[in-house]
Amino acid sequence: MARVVEASAVARRCVADITAERAKCSFPQHEVTAVLDGGEDKTQQRRKIEELFLSDPEFLDAVRPEYLSHEDRYANELRKACHMIGKFNNDEEIQQLVGQMEGIRTLMGSGLGVALTKDGNPLALHFVMFLPAIMGQGTVEQQGEWMGRAWTGEIIGTYAQTELGHGTFLRGLETTATYDPASQEFVLHSPTITATKWWPGGLGKTASHAVVMAQLYTQGQCHGPHPFIVQLRHQDTHCSLPGESHAGEIGPRLGMNTNDNGFLRFTHHRIPRTHLLMKHSQVLEDGTYIKPHNNKLAYGTMVFVRVAICFDAYRQLQRAVTIATRYSAVRRQSELVPGQPEPQILEYQTQQYKLLPLIATVFGIHFSARSVWDTYNEVTGSMQEGNLDRLPELHALSCGLKALSSSDAAGGVETCRLACGGHGYLASSNLPRIYTTTTAAITYEGENTVLWLQVARYLIKSYREACKGHTLRQSVSYLTPQPASSSASPSNLSNHALVKAFRRAVSHLVAEAAARLQKGCDAGMIFEHAWNSCSVQLARCAQVHTRYFTCEKFLSGVERAEVSEATRGVLTRLCRLYLVFHITNNQGDFLRSGALSPQDMSALEGELAALLAALRPDAVPLVDAFDIHDRILDSTLGCWDGNVYHRMVEEAEKSPLNQKDVPDAYHKYLRPLMKANL
Amino acid sequence: MARVVEASAVARRCVADITAERAKCSFPQHEVTAVLDGGEDKTQQRRKIEELFLSDPEFLDAVRPEYLSHEDRYANELRKACHMIGKFNNDEEIQQLVGQMEGIRTLMGSGLGVALTKDGNPLALHFVMFLPAIMGQGTVEQQGEWMGRAWTGEIIGTYAQTELGHGTFLRGLETTATYDPASQEFVLHSPTITATKWWPGGLGKTASHAVVMAQLYTQGQCHGPHPFIVQLRHQDTHCSLPGESHAGEIGPRLGMNTNDNGFLRFTHHRIPRTHLLMKHSQVLEDGTYIKPHNNKLAYGTMVFVRVAICFDAYRQLQRAVTIATRYSAVRRQSELVPGQPEPQILEYQTQQYKLLPLIATVFGIHFSARSVWDTYNEVTGSMQEGNLDRLPELHALSCGLKALSSSDAAGGVETCRLACGGHGYLASSNLPRIYTTTTAAITYEGENTVLWLQVARYLIKSYREACKGHTLRQSVSYLTPQPASSSASPSNLSNHALVKAFRRAVSHLVAEAAARLQKGCDAGMIFEHAWNSCSVQLARCAQVHTRYFTCEKFLSGVERAEVSEATRGVLTRLCRLYLVFHITNNQGDFLRSGALSPQDMSALEGELAALLAALRPDAVPLVDAFDIHDRILDSTLGCWDGNVYHRMVEEAEKSPLNQKDVPDAYHKYLRPLMKANL
Repeated sequence: MARVVEASAVARRCVADITAERAKCSFPQHEVTAVLDGGEDKTQQRRKIEELFLSDPEFLDAVRPEYLSHEDRYANELRKACHMIGKFNNDEEIQQLVGQMEGIRTLMGSGLGVALTKDGNPLALHFVMFLPAIMGQGTVEQQGEWMGRAWTGEIIGTYAQTELGHGTFLRGLETTATYDPASQEFVLHSPTITATKWWPGGLGKTASHAVVMAQLYTQGQCHGPHPFIVQLRHQDTHCSLPGESHAGEIGPRLGMNTNDNGFLRFTHHRIPRTHLLMKHSQVLEDGTYIKPHNNKLAYGTMVFVRVAICFDAYRQLQRAVTIATRYSAVRRQSELVPGQPEPQILEYQTQQYKLLPLIATVFGIHFSARSVWDTYNEVTGSMQEGNLDRLPELHALSCGLKALSSSDAAGGVETCRLACGGHGYLASSNLPRIYTTTTAAITYEGENTVLWLQVARYLIKSYREACKGHTLRQSVSYLTPQPASSSASPSNLSNHALVKAFRRAVSHLVAEAAARLQKGCDAGMIFEHAWNSCSVQLARCAQVHTRYFTCEKFLSGVERAEVSEATRGVLTRLCRLYLVFHITNNQGDFLRSGALSPQDMSALEGELAALLAALRPDAVPLVDAFDIHDRILDSTLGCWDGNVYHRMVEEAEKSPLNQKDVPDAYHKYLRPLMKANL
Repeated sequence: MARVVEASAVARRCVADITAERAKCSFPQHEVTAVLDGGEDKTQQRRKIEELFLSDPEFLDAVRPEYLSHEDRYANELRKACHMIGKFNNDEEIQQLVGQMEGIRTLMGSGLGVALTKDGNPLALHFVMFLPAIMGQGTVEQQGEWMGRAWTGEIIGTYAQTELGHGTFLRGLETTATYDPASQEFVLHSPTITATKWWPGGLGKTASHAVVMAQLYTQGQCHGPHPFIVQLRHQDTHCSLPGESHAGEIGPRLGMNTNDNGFLRFTHHRIPRTHLLMKHSQVLEDGTYIKPHNNKLAYGTMVFVRVAICFDAYRQLQRAVTIATRYSAVRRQSELVPGQPEPQILEYQTQQYKLLPLIATVFGIHFSARSVWDTYNEVTGSMQEGNLDRLPELHALSCGLKALSSSDAAGGVETCRLACGGHGYLASSNLPRIYTTTTAAITYEGENTVLWLQVARYLIKSYREACKGHTLRQSVSYLTPQPASSSASPSNLSNHALVKAFRRAVSHLVAEAAARLQKGCDAGMIFEHAWNSCSVQLARCAQVHTRYFTCEKFLSGVERAEVSEATRGVLTRLCRLYLVFHITNNQGDFLRSGALSPQDMSALEGELAALLAALRPDAVPLVDAFDIHDRILDSTLGCWDGNVYHRMVEEAEKSPLNQKDVPDAYHKYLRPLMKANL
């Protein structure tokens, strides 16, 4: 595990405090690493790939990107992104290790990807969206025409769907593609300013092509949004094509400033008919529209993307909590006992309460995302046989887990940053960038509030079916109303009893929301207005349901893991902490439903304190077991050796402002002020 | 109220949606503005000062600071900061309007201040800390020597207290100042790397002098941290003084990147004895140490600073919620009713639930901070007469309110940013910068968790005194144990009944925490360890107590405000929302204490929905009444006229990357990749 970065010339000793922490480890760490990687072979493979890229000096930055201008930052990340692709194209060992397209997508989304192009990769959408769109939505001929050129990088693409005035609601897109049978062309047009495409990564200056989503009109009829391949820049000069389309960069953002997010407007821009991606629906030469065979297949891709976001969130939270936990073992502050030396801040219960539940959350997301991923593979298998029955359940699960993981991770990263005090505010801690990247996932690929209401729709629908006596799918079967006698045994606070309490709490919430919804309808509101008037409560149902799901998957994941008893012990304590933490933080749900009593709560609060104390010695060993390379952490506060303060000073000395004693700005602005009255 | 910014050449019509919102206003807006400003005369004065500065083209930026390099950003803000001081020094009208030092400090901290120097003012600490330190801690002779030169800007100072390894815990500071009677000098020294001064604003490159806090040693004894004036840079050249001190900039941060935060190390650096600020304690020529008359006076300054932070937090939240509310009136998305046009997103209950409680929070912070401010003025009055009795109560109130306001504001700003979807992530929305500035207040001037535990200490102490039969100070008198019979009437949910329920909930929490603490002590733990083992619960007591305090002050503030019934109506609805929002979000506290029943909670949840609907028409009028100039909002999404999309495009077009069709980076990096296989 001793993968210390060699970046500094000074040989460094792990500071004594962090070495002492490592001596306390109660479990074999490689087992935890393997659980998270999916096997020891996967761990070895990951480490090998990381070494191959991280040993390449081309991926180093001359100065921290934060020092550069917006334009120079973009150039610097484009440099590394191109080098990454070049390396991939030319190195057979890497190709074998990483695999084909799947591999390069994984590479970019992984911890390694964020270490290589730190603030967003301008080529990411080419691999993550453009290539998959052609593969998934193009005919065999279209794949033949585009895939080869795109794969080698001869053309660079992006995926342009979101518009200035339209995000989550796909049907609201305004860009039109009107078929002209006379010339056999589609005419792309942005009828209003809000129809401007806005946000696609790589669209600003990098992409030569885009898959553009536009409302397809033919023979006077609109057939909804369809994907079109559009060339944006000249093949030789990279100049914008004259006149009919206009692309640019959308300006700086909270984070991810080098993704080259762009905008795009069309003025009656013509493209050949054959640039409509026609695997699912077609427009014939005469303008006849052929409907897709099945329009639910798109849900599969959405599920895939959302599970991928859960794993991203998990990796970001891992990094943040590794940094904050190691720093908390090194940082000493204040007095616990008057007159004694300042203790490690990890000794404070309030600090443990910030960090240990987040270490648990890493595992909670891991086990539940893996479960949805397995379900996804089962369901796509049966989908190919035409069986779409489980799609709504899977869709609801993936919506809920995306929303929960992204908000847990973003909130968790911010908790970690704040847990490092002022130093967490420094760019060199890397916590600011981890936050600005992680929080973006709350909004993209389905804004969380919108997703919660989709989950709620599934819950209410299921509840209503259950009330009619129908049998429910496994993940929601607990919503089936139970006879009143089946009350929880108040003195049983086992893990399974707590999961059961969760089920009871959600059932009660859903029943109350459904009743309120019905009351609105009975009072004469149309369903949609009644729905809106209950939506705060409905979103809450979805949140608690999804939390219940993660609790259950965490518990079953730990029970099933093939690990030693020592490892199962620490994972069980983490799972218990996760359960107790979320129950004591949402007491109303459990008290109102009668799932738990005030006495139970008091007992759980006492147990929480005991759990924090029991897990504290394993805090550093647990984050060590996440096995994150120092270059991927990229943090003065979180480095393996704990040599925090020297690294902070070393980083500060690199500031361009420190390369000159007196800054130019002194002579220009400050000196005239200081000498004005002499 | 129609203070539309004239920055754009294009005359703009308020978009129809936002004009329609303004027509719904149910109250005279100038009354609300006057309540917040403290009188209509104050409103007029504020507007006048704003116009005087904002009409000055020198305060405009050539490009958004986010486009610049770190070094250029600093230069740009230093330019404006120097101009601000120059303007103040030379303009009599401004001097009269703003007043003397108080005025310039207010100016920098106000909404106007953040509009002028956007990402931190490198001269801020000169006015906010350096000048006040000399005034408050220097003798009359020392004031005579330093104040004049500092006031005109001949010397620029900062205040260096925090060290690399030491923040909140003042006694932990390592920098030493050892008196040498032979030369009548103090020798300043940084014995370790963690003794490096770290964080002071302006210290990096701007300040020529600093007030440095160091452990005073004389005649072989340490007398704790004392303030010393230290010259850092040469009076003529601004060069660092050779050898014995080394200052520099600490590198980029999450936000506030132009504060010029710096570090400073001493190597046996000598300063004259007379550079110890000696108003309170002295070192005589022979090294004799004279103790301060009263060492509790420093608390007064801390209270002042913390109340100032509450008002900062209030202003930042005002800006964010103004932006998000106006945008929510302009943005249309999805379907409420199938087939109907996309509604304004403000129609969604989930959106109302995000924004309306934050509008209420603005008033909650306002009324409670003003109350603490009034108490501060009373207490400092009686302090000067030697009466320090109320200082502990005031200290606890100011700690709690600083922690609550800063965390409410930071969380609220982030909620606003996320409520604007992807566009809230754009720098041009200004929500990113408002967040990165606001969140810093969670950490500085007393880290919130540390503050919560100080409040808890006061609560537990008070509770224990009450148990002994002592009479408690007004703000905590409710902690006095009541006979069990005095149960709340369950059906009374009036505002006063809810405030009473809050009191009961806190009493219950404090009694439980105190019992758990006692149990730990009884089991043989030393008090400090028992305290630490309960500290999560103790922090919670402090939070709910402080929330109770804001509820009470909000309610009494609204009841006492001299306004029309229409204005009192809308303020009362906001206060009610504030109460119901916080109770329904923390149900466990009320259910466990028996302060409210499950049926009460259900009724309050129903009422919450009704309150959101009732307040929704006043949402835009309320934020309009905050009366924030468009230049102070500085937001494409929040501008008065609602012309969101045109402004976004206009801002994007200004990106330096958009000034060239093909970026230089294409030729350098992308073209070789794209042409590699041809």
